[in-house]
Amino acid sequence: MTRDTAELNEDVLDNIPLAHIPLPKSETPEELEDLALGDDYALNPEYVEMVIDAADRGDAKRLRELVGALDPADVADLMGFLTADYREEVIPLLDPEALGEIISELEDNIREEVLEATPSVTLARALEELDTDDAADVIDDLDDTKRFQVLAAMGETDRAAIETTLSYEDETAGRLMQREFLAAPEFWTVGQTIDHVREAGDSLPELFFDVYVVDPTFKPVGAIPISILLRSRRQTPLAELMEAVTEIPVEMDQEEVAYIFDKYHLISAPVIEPGGRLVGQITVDDIVEVIRDEAEEDILALAGVSDAGRDASVIEIVKSRLPWLMLNLATATLAVSGVAIFQAEIAQLVALAILMPIVSSLGGNAGTQTLAVAVRALASKELTPANARRIVARELLVGLVNGLCLALVMGAATYMFFGPSDQHDKLAIIVGAALITNIFTAALGGILMPLALEKMGRDPAVSSSIFVTFLTDFTGFFAVLLIASLLLH
Amino acid sequence: MTRDTAELNEDVLDNIPLAHIPLPKSETPEELEDLALGDDYALNPEYVEMVIDAADRGDAKRLRELVGALDPADVADLMGFLTADYREEVIPLLDPEALGEIISELEDNIREEVLEATPSVTLARALEELDTDDAADVIDDLDDTKRFQVLAAMGETDRAAIETTLSYEDETAGRLMQREFLAAPEFWTVGQTIDHVREAGDSLPELFFDVYVVDPTFKPVGAIPISILLRSRRQTPLAELMEAVTEIPVEMDQEEVAYIFDKYHLISAPVIEPGGRLVGQITVDDIVEVIRDEAEEDILALAGVSDAGRDASVIEIVKSRLPWLMLNLATATLAVSGVAIFQAEIAQLVALAILMPIVSSLGGNAGTQTLAVAVRALASKELTPANARRIVARELLVGLVNGLCLALVMGAATYMFFGPSDQHDKLAIIVGAALITNIFTAALGGILMPLALEKMGRDPAVSSSIFVTFLTDFTGFFAVLLIASLLLH
Repeated sequence: MTRDTAELNEDVLDNIPLAHIPLPKSETPEELEDLALGDDYALNPEYVEMVIDAADRGDAKRLRELVGALDPADVADLMGFLTADYREEVIPLLDPEALGEIISELEDNIREEVLEATPSVTLARALEELDTDDAADVIDDLDDTKRFQVLAAMGETDRAAIETTLSYEDETAGRLMQREFLAAPEFWTVGQTIDHVREAGDSLPELFFDVYVVDPTFKPVGAIPISILLRSRRQTPLAELMEAVTEIPVEMDQEEVAYIFDKYHLISAPVIEPGGRLVGQITVDDIVEVIRDEAEEDILALAGVSDAGRDASVIEIVKSRLPWLMLNLATATLAVSGVAIFQAEIAQLVALAILMPIVSSLGGNAGTQTLAVAVRALASKELTPANARRIVARELLVGLVNGLCLALVMGAATYMFFGPSDQHDKLAIIVGAALITNIFTAALGGILMPLALEKMGRDPAVSSSIFVTFLTDFTGFFAVLLIASLLLH
Repeated sequence: MTRDTAELNEDVLDNIPLAHIPLPKSETPEELEDLALGDDYALNPEYVEMVIDAADRGDAKRLRELVGALDPADVADLMGFLTADYREEVIPLLDPEALGEIISELEDNIREEVLEATPSVTLARALEELDTDDAADVIDDLDDTKRFQVLAAMGETDRAAIETTLSYEDETAGRLMQREFLAAPEFWTVGQTIDHVREAGDSLPELFFDVYVVDPTFKPVGAIPISILLRSRRQTPLAELMEAVTEIPVEMDQEEVAYIFDKYHLISAPVIEPGGRLVGQITVDDIVEVIRDEAEEDILALAGVSDAGRDASVIEIVKSRLPWLMLNLATATLAVSGVAIFQAEIAQLVALAILMPIVSSLGGNAGTQTLAVAVRALASKELTPANARRIVARELLVGLVNGLCLALVMGAATYMFFGPSDQHDKLAIIVGAALITNIFTAALGGILMPLALEKMGRDPAVSSSIFVTFLTDFTGFFAVLLIASLLLH
């Protein structure tokens, strides 16, 4: 096949009998899906190659076949494996029916691209297929002009629902909830409720897991899992089946919501307005995403890096990492600059220059350990004001014991390595004492810093590691040099 | 109230008219629950104090009241806030009905305590109330004698189910699944299925979210969310409603299962034996736990610390941290020991001793950044063989750019700080060149090490950070000293 035929447009290709083109035989969508996904449900590199190959040949028919066989989540995944040029070719071929779902699965920077390339009316139709929370998320990403156009092209009800959702703050229950749910008055029976569901049709979400039982003012008074509804006799009153319900205030932070879902193993929960009125529901699938995202944020924050996104350019990645490194450069320089005062000691005993960085490095590592444990314990509410005092005391004790053990080993090693002499005996004492000081300081900073940040309502993962690193760098150098200047003169 | 009356036993206390005891007024369970939980659904420190206070007074009635008002998850939480002595007092008062659930919510080391303190027969009854996966988890924690006793005291069916579950490997789908589920043949109608559910009673789990449609060999051919079942006409055949189903092989690793649930937003999924036969189901609430646990593992592994548990003793915590620090001591010493060769250079130009640790520390931080991003991308399958080459190239480029920027700033600062002189001009060049080398090395190690570990089937978070730290420590020192010895002589 020559480059010329490859650039024929799709219609022409459609009219060429397949047998004349030496392409791989057409597979059924099921066969293609099997080809696409490895045993681990990640996209096969070979499949990505097939897509790239079809795009290179300009074979729109094959491309549509390959992309069409995938679940929306896999299409979104595929987009992340393609470069921008290839994506541009794929975007117009996306199934309009699945477009909404694909968009809501895409990563931020790729999503932007797709949103730009899609006409407002197509977008409006695609978003109408989504639950309010997902549609609002997408709308929120549009620039003002396009947002206006898309909202204008949507139906009245959907537009109103999305606008209400967007009126809640980002990362709160209000943004996570969908406004469609199943509610029933206390005095209804199982049979009445099931009949209502059969008749209600489109006003109900496609998927729901609980019936919320409400009082006449529309406050939730209980909930019934629909599997319980299904197994109960039609004449049973709902009041007999309902269980206590955990209500989520509409302004609650999503991390809190995730904590509650996790703790009480909830599948869905009703969301209430300040007055107590039921206004929406949150389902566990949105929570799975929150839990994953929050954990990823913590991992990255502790390492001093923000997520530039899978498809970020080198410049975007540099921007997400360089500020932290520059800050680190400043604090390391600050920590070390004091060393200049002790130039005489170092020139006299070069071994100090060798031992200082070891003491600093160990302090940094001990601090990171304490920090990681503290951040995790705060996130899971295992560390709260109720036990903070006990945990802090325990961490400090751990710091002392670790410091002591390391000091013994390092002191002995120093003594053996440099051999016995009056100065070298002192070297062993210097390094030992400095290690104990620094590991203890690491414990102190590693536990108190995240606690303080949490108390101030800040994210304990975000700025604590730069502080603890600075603290242990500084203490490491100064402990060695101060103790040395005391002992050696 | 004197200490004497406080130590009266519960029966006596019960017979003293409440008005005579200056205790806080008896609250309803609802009032107590409001007292217990803060707005953030964590236990109030005041409530923990009330429990400790009641235990100090030996007031079993009050203790039972306080503990009884809590949800099993909150009782488990409470236990974590008490010391072992107080727990011993609370354990015998736990509601036998809720005992199973409380035990399955407890942390490992506290769970051990409770299991030891509970008679085998009580335990057997409590476990029969749980889903197979949760009961098997508890049984797995018992020592051999007690396991035998508890299993012997259980009903035949429950015992068999638990033994089958335990025959699967830890952290696989087989261990996560429950053996109770709702399956129906293709030719049934909605009505037939609902009638079956009403009649089946206890053989079905209390909660289920999907009907699995099976062929005559009991292989799943589709699934129907029960909300769809509920809204469909009774005479609709299941075959008309069912959608494609994602089957989970019984031996699949739980991290893979979590990935699939997260990716396809599943609420439940059928688990199949190697032949394809349906043997159980996994529900999303178990997956929430897996996702949280795996993310926590990664955070801790990157920091070089294992979770000693919330109630661990100082010695247990030291054991979970000291080995890593000792290893770090060894690698740091190894990295630095070469410095001894360059004693002459350092004595001649002490500024080198000041700059070396900065270069090392920045390398370490840049390496940690790359590592955290790589570990996260591997876990979410954003980094796979399909794009590894591109991502590695991008990371190396980022390393070069970051190194260049840092070198410019640090070189200029060095020049300004030490003032112009032939040797100090060279110092600026030395530190700049060493920084570029080390930041690039950090990028190389930070991306290739986790990729290599993943390829070997190992956890990329576990041992990569010690390696990268060593690499950047070593490179930091040697780059400075080697470049110095070349330029200064």
